[in-house]
Order: sequence, then C-alpha cells, then structure tokens
Amino acid sequence: MRLDDLARRLGLEFEGEPSTEISALAPLSEAGTGELTFVSGERLSAQYAASRAGAAILPPEFDSLGRACLRSAAPYAEFARAVELFHPRPSPPPGVHPTAVVDPGAELGEGVSVGAYVVIGEGARIGDRSCLYPHVTVYPGVSIGADCRIHSGVHLREEVRLGDRVIVQSGAVIGGEGFGFAPTAEGARVRVPHRTGVEIGDDCEIGSNTTIDAAHPAHPRHGHAVARTRLGERVAVDNLVQIGHGCWLEDDVTICALVGLGGTTEVGRGAVMGGVSASAGHLRVGAGARVGGGTGVSGDVGDGEEVLGYTHMPARIYRRSWAAFKRLPELLRRVRRIEQRLKLGGETD
Amino acid sequence: MRLDDLARRLGLEFEGEPSTEISALAPLSEAGTGELTFVSGERLSAQYAASRAGAAILPPEFDSLGRACLRSAAPYAEFARAVELFHPRPSPPPGVHPTAVVDPGAELGEGVSVGAYVVIGEGARIGDRSCLYPHVTVYPGVSIGADCRIHSGVHLREEVRLGDRVIVQSGAVIGGEGFGFAPTAEGARVRVPHRTGVEIGDDCEIGSNTTIDAAHPAHPRHGHAVARTRLGERVAVDNLVQIGHGCWLEDDVTICALVGLGGTTEVGRGAVMGGVSASAGHLRVGAGARVGGGTGVSGDVGDGEEVLGYTHMPARIYRRSWAAFKRLPELLRRVRRIEQRLKLGGETD
Amino acid sequence: MRLDDLARRLGLEFEGEPSTEISALAPLSEAGTGELTFVSGERLSAQYAASRAGAAILPPEFDSLGRACLRSAAPYAEFARAVELFHPRPSPPPGVHPTAVVDPGAELGEGVSVGAYVVIGEGARIGDRSCLYPHVTVYPGVSIGADCRIHSGVHLREEVRLGDRVIVQSGAVIGGEGFGFAPTAEGARVRVPHRTGVEIGDDCEIGSNTTIDAAHPAHPRHGHAVARTRLGERVAVDNLVQIGHGCWLEDDVTICALVGLGGTTEVGRGAVMGGVSASAGHLRVGAGARVGGGTGVSGDVGDGEEVLGYTHMPARIYRRSWAAFKRLPELLRRVRRIEQRLKLGGETD
Repeated sequence: MRLDDLARRLGLEFEGEPSTEISALAPLSEAGTGELTFVSGERLSAQYAASRAGAAILPPEFDSLGRACLRSAAPYAEFARAVELFHPRPSPPPGVHPTAVVDPGAELGEGVSVGAYVVIGEGARIGDRSCLYPHVTVYPGVSIGADCRIHSGVHLREEVRLGDRVIVQSGAVIGGEGFGFAPTAEGARVRVPHRTGVEIGDDCEIGSNTTIDAAHPAHPRHGHAVARTRLGERVAVDNLVQIGHGCWLEDDVTICALVGLGGTTEVGRGAVMGGVSASAGHLRVGAGARVGGGTGVSGDVGDGEEVLGYTHMPARIYRRSWAAFKRLPELLRRVRRIEQRLKLGGETD
Repeated sequence: MRLDDLARRLGLEFEGEPSTEISALAPLSEAGTGELTFVSGERLSAQYAASRAGAAILPPEFDSLGRACLRSAAPYAEFARAVELFHPRPSPPPGVHPTAVVDPGAELGEGVSVGAYVVIGEGARIGDRSCLYPHVTVYPGVSIGADCRIHSGVHLREEVRLGDRVIVQSGAVIGGEGFGFAPTAEGARVRVPHRTGVEIGDDCEIGSNTTIDAAHPAHPRHGHAVARTRLGERVAVDNLVQIGHGCWLEDDVTICALVGLGGTTEVGRGAVMGGVSASAGHLRVGAGARVGGGTGVSGDVGDGEEVLGYTHMPARIYRRSWAAFKRLPELLRRVRRIEQRLKLGGETD
Repeated sequence: MRLDDLARRLGLEFEGEPSTEISALAPLSEAGTGELTFVSGERLSAQYAASRAGAAILPPEFDSLGRACLRSAAPYAEFARAVELFHPRPSPPPGVHPTAVVDPGAELGEGVSVGAYVVIGEGARIGDRSCLYPHVTVYPGVSIGADCRIHSGVHLREEVRLGDRVIVQSGAVIGGEGFGFAPTAEGARVRVPHRTGVEIGDDCEIGSNTTIDAAHPAHPRHGHAVARTRLGERVAVDNLVQIGHGCWLEDDVTICALVGLGGTTEVGRGAVMGGVSASAGHLRVGAGARVGGGTGVSGDVGDGEEVLGYTHMPARIYRRSWAAFKRLPELLRRVRRIEQRLKLGGETD
C-alpha cells in the first residue's frame, strides 16, 4: 500500500514521498524498508533516530528527521487501526449454521451469525449483528446485546446479560454457580443456589477461560431490584481470571491475567488489578487504584492508591521494605554483635 | 407468597401476621417491605434492629422485636432453601437429545438427561437421574453416579469415576494427563502415561474451568488396587483450581479459587485451602488445617494448624512479622545509628 | 505377563526367574508380589531392601539383592513404557466422524482421526495421523503437524501453527486475542487486533485449560517476517497456564501449573518456571534458569540462575531472609532495648 493511500484510509496527514510502499508493520526497534512503525513519545527520539523504518506514525510535534511519516495525537491507536488494514479478518457471515440448536422460544436479531454447534436455550435473546462462534452454549434466559463477539466454546449460564459490543474469548464461563454454602444445624454444608445471574456492560472484554460467577439474593444489590455480579462499561478482563459471586466492577476497570476476586469485591472506576493479584473479598478497591502484580488485597484500598505485597501495603513502603528484606540475616548478626558489646543477652540465648 | 405459606413450605414456625406478603429476598442491610432476609447470630442484633425487612429468618432465641419472622437453628441454610422457592430453576427434562452421540456400548440409567451435542464414549456409565448439559464430552470408560449435574462443556477423560450427586460446573477438565515426565539416559524427557484416572466421591462440587489430573501407577495407592487422583465425599472445589496427579483429598475439604495443588498432595479431612494458595506437592495438609489465601505450602501442615505466607509459617507468626516488615528500612537505620554510637562498623561499610 | 516376556517387549536384560508373573505396577514403597516397580538411584537402596516388589527396574550397577529385576540406565523412563503395556489405550481410529464440520477448503492428511462435533475452518491443514478428539474447534487458517493429539474442546484460533507430535489437553485455548490496548487522544482505550497467531514447535505439550495468546505486529519478531507468540521444541506447559502475547519460549522449557507469563516474556532454553510463578513481562528468563514456585519475576533472570520470592531475588538470599523474617518482631524489640540502654530514642518515639 502506498503511503498516501494509507494516510487516506486512516484519515491522517502524511509527510514524505507519497508513493512510499508500505507492505508490513513492525516494532520501532526492528522496522525496515517498506515497514510502518509508530513512536508514542519524545522519550523514544533516540530509538527513532536509529530506526530504519520505511515510515512511522508520529505525535504532532515529534521531529520526523525528514522521513516519511503520518501524524496522530495517538500513534499506537492508529497503528492498531493499521493492523486491521494489513491483517484484515472478515467476520463470519450472518446466518445460522444448520447444526446450531436454537430453541424456538429464543429471539435472534438482524444480521446475527450463529456458528456450528451453537446451542441457544429457551428465552434467550441475541442482539443485532452479534456473532457466536462454534460450540458456544447459551443457557435459557440469557440476553446478549448488539455487535457482540462470542468466541468458540464460551458458556453463558442462565440469567447472564451482556450489553452491546461485548467480546468474550474462547472457553470463558460466565454465570456459573458461586462458591456459596450455608451451614446446617448439624454442621453440614448446603449449597446456596445462585440464580440471579451476571450483568456485563457495553464494550467489555472477557479473556479466554475466565470464570465469572452468578450472585444470589444475599449479595449487595447496589440499588437494583436484585443482586447480580456486575461489570460496568469498558471493563477489560484478561485470561484465566476468577470473578467471584457478588463482585461489582465499575466502568473502565482493568483486570489482568490470573487475578482472583473473592466474592463481594467492589472495584472502583478505572482501577487496575495487576496480573496474579487477588482480593480476599468483601472489600473495595477504590477508583483509580493500582494493585500491583501478585498483590494480596486484604482490605479496602483507597481511591488512587498504589499497593503491593502480600498482604498489601502502600507500594512505596513495600518496595523499600522488600529491598531491605534481603538484609535481614545481616541485621540479625549486627544486633547480636551490638548486644555482645553491651553485654546483653538476646531473646533466643 | 404469604408468610404462612412460606413457613409451611419451608417447614418452619413463624411469628407475626400470617398474611404478610413476601415477594423477594434481600440481604439484611438492604431488605425492605415485602422482602425476606436472615440473621445468623446475636452479633447482628443492631443491624436487625435497623433493618426494614418485611420478615426475617431468625435463630431460636433471637429477639424478633415483635416483627414477622421464621425460626430456624440454621437461618442461612433456610434462606438458601427460600432462594430455591423464589428463583426456581427446573432441571432439563429426562431424555437424550437427538444430537447427542452416545456409544452403543454406553449405559444410561433411568431418567437421565443428556443435552445437545453431548458425546458419550464406549463403556461409559451414567447413573439414574443424572443430567448432562450441552457439549459435555464423556470419554470411554467413565462412570458417573446418580443425581449428578454436569454442566456445559465439561470434559471427563478416560477412567474418571464420579459418585452420586456430584456437581461439575462448565468447562472443568477431569482426568487430563498429569504433568509427569521421566528422564531418558540421554537426558531427554519422555511422558509417563497417566492411565489410572480420577475418583470423585459423593456430593462433591467442582468449579468452572477447574482441572483435575489423572494419576499413574507410581503414585501412592492408599490401600487401593491402583493409584488414582482422589477426592473424598462432600469436597467443594472452586473455579480455576488445578489438582495435580496423585493428589488425595479426604472428606469435607474446601479448595477455593485459583488454588494449585502440586502432585501427590494429601489434604486431610475438613481442611481449607484459601484462594490462590498452593502446595508444592508431596506433602500433607492435616485434617482441619486452614491454609490462608495466597499461602505457599512448602511442607507438611499439622492437623488444625493455621498457616500463612510464602513460604508458609504459622499464621500468628506470619501476621506479626508481616506487620513488622514495613519497618525494615527504619530498623536498618536504627542499627546503623547504634553502631555509630558504639563506634562499630556495619557489615556493609 | 511373565518377566521374560516383559523384558523382551521392553528390550531390556532381566535377572531372576523368567516365569515370574507381573500383573500390575506400583510405587517402590507399596509394591508387592506380582507387581513391578522401579528404582532411580543409589539413594533408594534402603527402600529397595525393604520393598516386597515382585520385580524392579534397576540402574545397571544397583545391587538387586538377588531379586527379579530388569536393567536400564533410565528406570523411570522404562517404567513409563511399562505403564503403556499394562494400561494400553488405543487411539481413536482414523476417519472423520459424520458429525464433524470440515470446511471444503481444509486439508486433512493421511490417517487423520477427527472426532464427533469437531469444527475445522477454511484453509486449515491437519497433518498425517493427527487425532482431534470431540468438540475441538479449529478456526480458519490453522495448521497442525503430523502425529498431533488434540484433546476434547481445545480451541485453536486463527493463524495458529502446531508442529509435529504436539499434545494439547482438553479445553486449552491457543491463539486468543492478547490483552493489548492503545490509548486514544481522548484517553479512551482501543483494542489492538492480534492477528499474527501463535507458533508451537514439535513435541510440545500444552495442559488442560491453558491459554496462549496471539501476537500483533508491534511485538518482537526474533528475525522472522512477522511477530508470533512462539514455543520452541519439546516445551512442556502444564494446566491453567497463561502465556501472554508476544512471549518467546526456547526449546526444552518447562512451565508448571498456574504460571502467568506477561506479554513479551522470553524464556531461554531449558529454563523452568515453578508452579504459580509469574513474569511481569518484557523481560528474559535465561537459559537453564530455575524460577521457584510462587516467584514473581520482575526483571531479567540470568542464565542458570535460581530465584525465589516476590519480587524475585537469588534463591540463596531469599531462603535466608525468609527464615529470618519470622524474627522481625523480636528484632524490633532487641533494637528497642539497645536504644534504651544507650539512651537513644527510636524513630517512632
């Protein structure tokens, strides 16, 4: 594709030779002739200078050094759009595969695509132009919004509601029974039925093999008629994440891979849970908080707070303490020496 | 539903106006007119006093303040039964879906329900009234007891045996090949075939996307003819749990989400592994032990012991040390100051 | 089976009574009459002396105490082969199940076995003698080598390439969209399309419900034309592992259960990541390195290095510090006492 064509298709201004051929995309450190890359900010000016990319997407004031470039206030986002141009992936065509089992009581919208061996239960509703890949299982009573993309083998259990433009990666299980049990008088354990489902807002993404459990009526309702496990809008959840019953995630939250949210965890708007971190449940992670990878959150985290550690503490304190942690044996020896000098016995003498 | 009807259906005594209408269930802190809640003990008496619930399930001696209530020694368990009444969920009807592929050599009991696209292999046996949701894969030689509920997309590999009333949530894989390899003389790695399966006792629950691996003949047999990975009775396993080859879980064990049990882990009766905890394998967690969330168990844990930490230590010691952990940098400075006062050089000077 | 038959079939020398009957396999500590076990080295000579096994596979110079035995330089590997003899598991027969949906544009090699309800998309290629169990989903453009074994419910997304003799356990998702987003000028988040797939080398094993994400063109290409998430040859990956977009694993790497590799993690040849460990991403774990279970790798790990801890440090240092960790409260008290003796105030006084 020529540079000027690319610029036109992305709706961007370009500089340099219009006929520059771009045939591939590459990272800044590797891009060569005929390849398009991007630069996100001034801190990369040295790498840009050393780069041999055929063209780059640059921020508005960034010095192009006279090379072919496209201008954008969000270079990485435009690069993402360029990926779509160079590696197009057509959606499956609308229509219902002959092998799909669709309950007569289910409703399919306009332009819906239902793949091979999809099973759709009674009372389920699929919104316009949504796409279900092969082997998706939609239990009775599920509602899926418009323009959703549900990849292969996803399981949507009863009473799950998805908004519009929700993407679910393969194998995810949404709406399974939460891990809730009640003790009987004899000390045995009975299961609490989790019947009130999961609600996922517009533009959310759910990763491969992630599990999100349904709620039951003893969970907080947050002003609604019935308690649901809920994700707001534009929540991004990575792979192999567990979201427990009764959790409540506000808009724009990010949950990285292998995170475990214990039941009734609230996560405030825009907060981030780093990979492999976890919440003990029954706590609130504040708006804009950043929970570092691997952190065990054992109580509330304030708005905008950054925490690390198992169990968690302010990141600043954790990092300093962890750096000192390796000096613990030395510290014991030094204190022992001081005690000897002062003719004190230590506690363990 | 009227209060007296509800009481009759739950088999409980009630107090207050028999015609009190109950239309929904709610937590104690939120319940309002027409809503039923529950109180588990005296410690909630203040919250009960402040509650506006239409009716509550109360322990026998709890002061009802003259309000409508039902009496039970296990209020939460009765609330669970009430959830079933207010949010009934009919089971799929008995019968075999026309799209199910059932090997002629498989045996299905009375009243079994087999959903769309279930695949049942040769020699498999499904007990009476068990229910297989769509897309379940039952490999050859599997045996499922009576009254089991196997949700969509579960994979039961060869030689897996489930007892009665076992519930398996969507996407779980039971009986996959364990992570077992043997070194060859040249230092290469060959796979050890794991052919002897998994045995799961009555009334167990297995969570969504959980994986439980099969054993092989070099694993401990615990007095049986052949080694199997085994769960006893009433074991509750949450979502995204890994149970490695040769593990042996006794009755009434609880395994929370994202726990990893390395191979040949024994877990004694009634023990609890908190979320995101892990066992290095080849160790025993004693009966009634409590392994806190996030703990790395690196050796045996005694009966009734409570442990925390990575790697684990008694919880009492861990909590105190962790509280002191944030004071490590301060400690280094204080020791430096003492050494200066005593005109001692520190180790790093 | 007679001892001499067993020896002949395994191609090993034997000692002792040729007609010794072997009917089962067992671990050294449990094996009895008629059972075969193995001994891996001298350190087990006391257990061997105490064993009542009918026969054992022994290293060449190991003292058999006059008992029936087979000789091998790799006893465990031969035991593994004996498991195959005593617990044979026939492969599914070649052929395509009538319910499989195979795109006319897909190519199936010689002797391929395609199970019930497998879906194979356009342009996919399956190599000779490969075996796809029921419910496998093969998206368009996937290529699978020869002699592969793909268990039930595996999802192979677009542009995934598997080499020869690759084994994938049930429920794994290979090639899902990575967790990659770009910020727009307004601060919103757009998804970066991950279109360039995953490449998995010969003889790899992927565990149950493991997720491996596809890459996009901004990931490192390692000298190739396009960036892919890549596993080399003979890489063994356990269950419930997350391998993020752009990761690059060299030959003979071992990844244990519940490991999380953040995007763009490089793992050098022969390195081992212990269970539940994790990489923050954008780092290199050196060749032959050993990352202990539960470790949080937050930066490069050198070749052959052994690390532990969250965040990681050399194992030797971590172990000593962790042993001293439980003495932190004691240390604070001892320093307080010293300060009092020297009439110094502490920092918190």
